Amino acid sequence: MAEKRKRTEISTLGEFGLIEHLTKGFKSLQKSTMKGVGDDAAVIAVGEKLMVVTTDLLLEGIHFDLTYTPLQHLGYKAVVVNLSDVYAMNATPTQITVSIGVSAKLAVEDLDELYAGIQMACEHYGVDMVGGDTSASLTGLTISITAIGEAPKESITYRSGAQVNDLICLSGDLGAALMGLQILEREKQVFQQTGLEQPQLEGYDYVLKRILKPEARVGTIEMLKEAGIKPTSMIDISDGLSSELRHICKESGVGCRVYLEKIPIAAETFKVCEELNFDAVTAALNGGEDYEMLFTIRQEDVEKIHGLSGVDVIGHITGASTGAFLVTPDGRDIELQAQGWVDC
Amino acid sequence: MAEKRKRTEISTLGEFGLIEHLTKGFKSLQKSTMKGVGDDAAVIAVGEKLMVVTTDLLLEGIHFDLTYTPLQHLGYKAVVVNLSDVYAMNATPTQITVSIGVSAKLAVEDLDELYAGIQMACEHYGVDMVGGDTSASLTGLTISITAIGEAPKESITYRSGAQVNDLICLSGDLGAALMGLQILEREKQVFQQTGLEQPQLEGYDYVLKRILKPEARVGTIEMLKEAGIKPTSMIDISDGLSSELRHICKESGVGCRVYLEKIPIAAETFKVCEELNFDAVTAALNGGEDYEMLFTIRQEDVEKIHGLSGVDVIGHITGASTGAFLVTPDGRDIELQAQGWVDC
Repeated sequence: MAEKRKRTEISTLGEFGLIEHLTKGFKSLQKSTMKGVGDDAAVIAVGEKLMVVTTDLLLEGIHFDLTYTPLQHLGYKAVVVNLSDVYAMNATPTQITVSIGVSAKLAVEDLDELYAGIQMACEHYGVDMVGGDTSASLTGLTISITAIGEAPKESITYRSGAQVNDLICLSGDLGAALMGLQILEREKQVFQQTGLEQPQLEGYDYVLKRILKPEARVGTIEMLKEAGIKPTSMIDISDGLSSELRHICKESGVGCRVYLEKIPIAAETFKVCEELNFDAVTAALNGGEDYEMLFTIRQEDVEKIHGLSGVDVIGHITGASTGAFLVTPDGRDIELQAQGWVDC
Repeated sequence: MAEKRKRTEISTLGEFGLIEHLTKGFKSLQKSTMKGVGDDAAVIAVGEKLMVVTTDLLLEGIHFDLTYTPLQHLGYKAVVVNLSDVYAMNATPTQITVSIGVSAKLAVEDLDELYAGIQMACEHYGVDMVGGDTSASLTGLTISITAIGEAPKESITYRSGAQVNDLICLSGDLGAALMGLQILEREKQVFQQTGLEQPQLEGYDYVLKRILKPEARVGTIEMLKEAGIKPTSMIDISDGLSSELRHICKESGVGCRVYLEKIPIAAETFKVCEELNFDAVTAALNGGEDYEMLFTIRQEDVEKIHGLSGVDVIGHITGASTGAFLVTPDGRDIELQAQGWVDC
């Protein structure tokens, strides 16, 4: 029975490498499949419309820590991160399914809180919860949400549409969610070391809200539509600006230059970075979970974009051969890495 | 912080009670939602077509035991159980998403096996794997699959359409999956007690295949279509005949009478039941995971159904006030329970 065979640790491939490795053998059999693995969501043709489908799996201890995450916020966020993927396709979310694996430590009242957050998100974004699966779990809480959306055929925006000279745009500001997480982790350590039950969270409202109860950028999507701008490519920022820019460059076969001083960081985020001795640019480039929209537009749309509140132009698309770079105010080029960044 | 509040154990509600409790507050906001929670799959209108969506969460230690479940079979089965829900809506599955949480004990080669099984099922049933999520898991292996299907508007079959005097039909045979599980559990215990590595699985091919590598009843769905029969209601057997009959009765607002001697049980299943001193009728009524199709048809379609291979008429629908009963050969009426059955 116990035959000896090769064992390759999953860590040697990394998340994106693993996905590529596991999915490369699959062939498309359905002509309705317009886009499979490799974007924010899959795209399926149904008559004259396109449906988009995206799914996220959230595991206790990996994606959330119940010691400092209120269940209502967790439910809200679990929905929002999926809707964000639908918006990143320039589509409108319409339905979700919610599956949960429930550990014995949770009571019905805990699930009521979780579902109150799920329901709040459904009502806020106007989506229906249409199904799911409920199971006991021997270990931690598991949440799996699938979101479905729709869009006219001409609207769908992929990661792969960026062209040389397109402008790179960003909604909102970056790095706040990571700093919120740092504050929560600090207070957890204080609690574990001292047993003090009252965490010091006053004055951190903005960064805490960004990590605990993020919103999807439906406003940005609507503004773009009203302004008559169709992004050439789009992605939501779940893993950090660097990583998402590299996705767009890889899928579009282009390079990019973004300018450090153009990257929007909130004053509250700077303040926490200073307090915790954390580099704010690193937080903005690599801190995930901001759920802002990163998108590219044609040069001819530049006048239209300047009128939109909360959207910044942070750089432009270049040829593939020039790579993906961050340009510092003193003129240095720093190559963007999937995780981290190196001087060159 | 540690406020005192009510704690209701989840077990007091049961799975179906919990789902009802958690989802009752949700209102439908999208006019495209034709059916939300409460059937084998949700139904969404897209133009002239209907899409169906269903999802399942599989957790190690709850839904599968890796000590005796080959990963390739697990991947295959995880897909099939979702496709079965799509077929149970009289729809055709077209795409799936696959999310996995991977514990550290698994290597890339293990996931290759899992995905080989997933791919095999995709190819066999002609569906595309179009997305998912991959994550580390601190605990066991977690698999969450969502299946999407489509159907013309007139084809979709709900649990709620059964009418008084409709005939109750069933594909295949029941109880085999449960007996396969019993054999695997027996061999696991032998292994744990004696350390003997070679399990005794010869001669149990049929029941083992039913638990380890089940198939979805696409053949039955196709036969019904060819025969010009549209079932008035349909459900797949994942929790056991008793439980599924009660779902149809509840959703349709009817009662039923099924006849014990009409319930199909394979010779192989009888043999294992005898060996393990297990009541075969109990296995057939309450053993889940058979993934056969349970459906009702109009009386006028009775001639058409008799020509179909592998389909049995096991009873008929009655008024709601008469309840849901199993009739024994000696004429006793036994009330069908969600789990178990009682003499009355």
